[in-house]
Amino acid sequence: MDATINEVCELIGGVLSHGDGDIRLIGFASLEDATGSQLSFYASEKFEASLKKTAAAAIIISEGLDGSEAKDSVFIKVPDAALAFDRIVLEYGEKPPEFVPGLASGSHVDSSASFDASKVSVLPGAVVLKNATIGDGTCIQAGAVVGERVTIGKDCDIGPNVTIREGCIIGDRVIIHGGTVIGGDGFGYEFENGRHRKVDQMGIVRIESDVEIGSSTTIDRARFGETVIGEGTKIDNQVQIGHNAIIGKHCIIVAQCGISGSAKLGNYVTLAARVGVAGHIEIADQVTVGGKSGVISSITEPGGTYFGYPAKPMKETLRNEMRIKKLGGLLNRVKGLEKRLEGLDVDK
Amino acid sequence: MDATINEVCELIGGVLSHGDGDIRLIGFASLEDATGSQLSFYASEKFEASLKKTAAAAIIISEGLDGSEAKDSVFIKVPDAALAFDRIVLEYGEKPPEFVPGLASGSHVDSSASFDASKVSVLPGAVVLKNATIGDGTCIQAGAVVGERVTIGKDCDIGPNVTIREGCIIGDRVIIHGGTVIGGDGFGYEFENGRHRKVDQMGIVRIESDVEIGSSTTIDRARFGETVIGEGTKIDNQVQIGHNAIIGKHCIIVAQCGISGSAKLGNYVTLAARVGVAGHIEIADQVTVGGKSGVISSITEPGGTYFGYPAKPMKETLRNEMRIKKLGGLLNRVKGLEKRLEGLDVDK
Amino acid sequence: MDATINEVCELIGGVLSHGDGDIRLIGFASLEDATGSQLSFYASEKFEASLKKTAAAAIIISEGLDGSEAKDSVFIKVPDAALAFDRIVLEYGEKPPEFVPGLASGSHVDSSASFDASKVSVLPGAVVLKNATIGDGTCIQAGAVVGERVTIGKDCDIGPNVTIREGCIIGDRVIIHGGTVIGGDGFGYEFENGRHRKVDQMGIVRIESDVEIGSSTTIDRARFGETVIGEGTKIDNQVQIGHNAIIGKHCIIVAQCGISGSAKLGNYVTLAARVGVAGHIEIADQVTVGGKSGVISSITEPGGTYFGYPAKPMKETLRNEMRIKKLGGLLNRVKGLEKRLEGLDVDK
Repeated sequence: MDATINEVCELIGGVLSHGDGDIRLIGFASLEDATGSQLSFYASEKFEASLKKTAAAAIIISEGLDGSEAKDSVFIKVPDAALAFDRIVLEYGEKPPEFVPGLASGSHVDSSASFDASKVSVLPGAVVLKNATIGDGTCIQAGAVVGERVTIGKDCDIGPNVTIREGCIIGDRVIIHGGTVIGGDGFGYEFENGRHRKVDQMGIVRIESDVEIGSSTTIDRARFGETVIGEGTKIDNQVQIGHNAIIGKHCIIVAQCGISGSAKLGNYVTLAARVGVAGHIEIADQVTVGGKSGVISSITEPGGTYFGYPAKPMKETLRNEMRIKKLGGLLNRVKGLEKRLEGLDVDK
Repeated sequence: MDATINEVCELIGGVLSHGDGDIRLIGFASLEDATGSQLSFYASEKFEASLKKTAAAAIIISEGLDGSEAKDSVFIKVPDAALAFDRIVLEYGEKPPEFVPGLASGSHVDSSASFDASKVSVLPGAVVLKNATIGDGTCIQAGAVVGERVTIGKDCDIGPNVTIREGCIIGDRVIIHGGTVIGGDGFGYEFENGRHRKVDQMGIVRIESDVEIGSSTTIDRARFGETVIGEGTKIDNQVQIGHNAIIGKHCIIVAQCGISGSAKLGNYVTLAARVGVAGHIEIADQVTVGGKSGVISSITEPGGTYFGYPAKPMKETLRNEMRIKKLGGLLNRVKGLEKRLEGLDVDK
Repeated sequence: MDATINEVCELIGGVLSHGDGDIRLIGFASLEDATGSQLSFYASEKFEASLKKTAAAAIIISEGLDGSEAKDSVFIKVPDAALAFDRIVLEYGEKPPEFVPGLASGSHVDSSASFDASKVSVLPGAVVLKNATIGDGTCIQAGAVVGERVTIGKDCDIGPNVTIREGCIIGDRVIIHGGTVIGGDGFGYEFENGRHRKVDQMGIVRIESDVEIGSSTTIDRARFGETVIGEGTKIDNQVQIGHNAIIGKHCIIVAQCGISGSAKLGNYVTLAARVGVAGHIEIADQVTVGGKSGVISSITEPGGTYFGYPAKPMKETLRNEMRIKKLGGLLNRVKGLEKRLEGLDVDK
């Protein structure tokens, strides 16, 4: 963004309250983050504390709010500052690349792959192997590898350097970010004669529609059958999901979580960052697990909040932590008791 | 898989016990996971609980076992159900892509690289740089990068979008899954005049034969000398191994572990998921470390099981956790003692 | 390295103290790691314990030090053994590939990209998309993807299979190792009618000069505005940095750390391995956080050392851990008190 305050005013149909409309604005940010040449917005009194401290050159403000505490900023009054700011983001924000259908020069597509080249976009360096199928409106970004017999639905975005291994199935409107690997082998060995013998991993990964998966996440293929990511589930960066895991619909799995093989998550489960889930256990619908927790036994009751390692109902873990905090005092109290008993000379 | 029960029967030489042999089976799964159109198997009474609950359309059952509890499923009797099911998996499972020797169109191989193009497979988008050497029977999958002077042995599978940096050495029959990076620089700096000066990392990574490495794992090159992964060791996804670490033979390192620089693991060491190992420490042969533990001092005695942060003998950590669980009771007991002493009016 | 002891002696201008100068040396290592055909060095009495146990065939030793305890090794005397060994590493160590300017055959560069092809190196399989700008002396390694409108400064090294998404800005002398993803979407959704609606992520990532980033690290683009990595900061492998995070200058962030969205780190902050930082909190300048800690509230005082989950001043966490260790004794003491009170028959 590089525009004058007047230009911004015009774009969002606002009214300049005072100050110089010719000042150039270089970028935009929240009140907290904005520098002295940036635009911000103030849409609710909730953010009054940030308003007092902001360095923003100009602030879009909702009618009815009092911005007088930010004296050094120019104000642009509008009916709804949040809405107006969305307009700014849309105008000046970094837009995703335009969808350009066709096979780019430098893309490598096997002649047996099945899709409508006038409706699919395959960028340079991307590879589509034998008998893969790709739906209309899908983009295979640069350097991505679509394995043999992979099926990808409509309007998907397969990110740069993503790997989708043979036979995996991807629904519609699925977004997969850079470097993620779908369908690597599950981690399975038999110990025989002092060596680990590989157990063939002959299942697949199935990702249902409207799933989004972050960068450098790994989802392993099933031993046989399917590892499943349910419809509408959103997975962050650097998440590991083991073979035969079944993730329900509309779950939220934050960065660096690890879900072991054959674990089953219900629908609307939320795992905060770095949660570990042990193999072969189940987590009921709508359960929330706090950050860095380790779930090592099944959670069968829907809807609760769990925390700790091993993960327990949040209250229980917090109560335990409170008790540990009191340990210093407890030690002193026991010392006191011993002293007083000493005084009583009880053993005589 | 899409076959009738009769077709399956014929393939495995089984006997249909009752029900309709013309039913179509779409896929196969464990008793627990199978849906109403899938095939499963029952090979041991251990799985009786799963048998009672299964929805499988048809079940391969070992002679001598009683399957009557799964009334709604068709049964196929065979001498050994596990063996017969393996046959099914082999027939209908997702097979790895066929090995096709030669340099695919769209692969980029430097003319100085040394290998027999009639016995090596380089897929589209793969890159082999100067003076690399590749053994017979090895596949360099799509998008993989084999750096300058890298040596790869026979019958290896270098996965899609894998990176192997300059000078690293890979043994025979090594499998590396998608997105993994071998031979990135170790993390080493000298602090000088308020800045971190990079310490050159001029060693390599050497991976011995029969090693398997998961997806998105990172193994850094040594400061000088070698970072070593010993023969037959199996490493899961998203594992980080620092510079100059020496991993012994036939170890198992589960997902999301982190092994710091110059750590040394013996042979047959098992690290469960998410274990962290501090730099410069040693872990003796056949030691097992429980999930999420942090090993911060050397474990010199072979064969034990360790757990916790800091990792200690399993029993010790569990004893401590048991004590913490008793803390609530302890607090009450101390309160009780104080009350009773109060009653005694000891200070008078 | 494959050289005789005499050749090494000549290269570093040393004096052979005793033994056979015709012995061949295959590689070099620290005293601890060296095998019976390797060269090592002894530069300080600090390493006397390693000297006693070393198997090195030859040892470079600083004048004035007594190496008599390593009887089986040949000694090469020099004024400064550390300096001489650096010379050896430089001569025989694995060198980074030579910088070869130009667009390699098999690289894919959009015609709208802006750079001087005689001063930039783009390797096979690398992709440079529309309107990207690349400074002189920069190398785009094999399989790397430089997105639309990306700006990269001078003398950068963009590693193999790295992804830099649209609009991101990279300073000068930045090193990014293999598989890392810069500028994936931040993880943001609104929950509406039972589904998670994606919040557009329209900001960028800005990486200042002299930053180094390890392998398979992920740094997400801002919701709007910028995610920033400050000048001179060094980030290890498999680190996750969320949208709108601001990392200060000259920080050290060790492997597998996770920094949540909108967190702010000051300058010279050190996060040891696997530290988690919660969203929207701040960490003051020069703070150090110990391994595996979880920082869940702001640290406003500069310069301290913090540890634990939740992270507290190191002393406090260690004191708590000490108390937990004493729990067994405490339980026994309380038991003892109860017994003694029992003897007193206090309730009568």
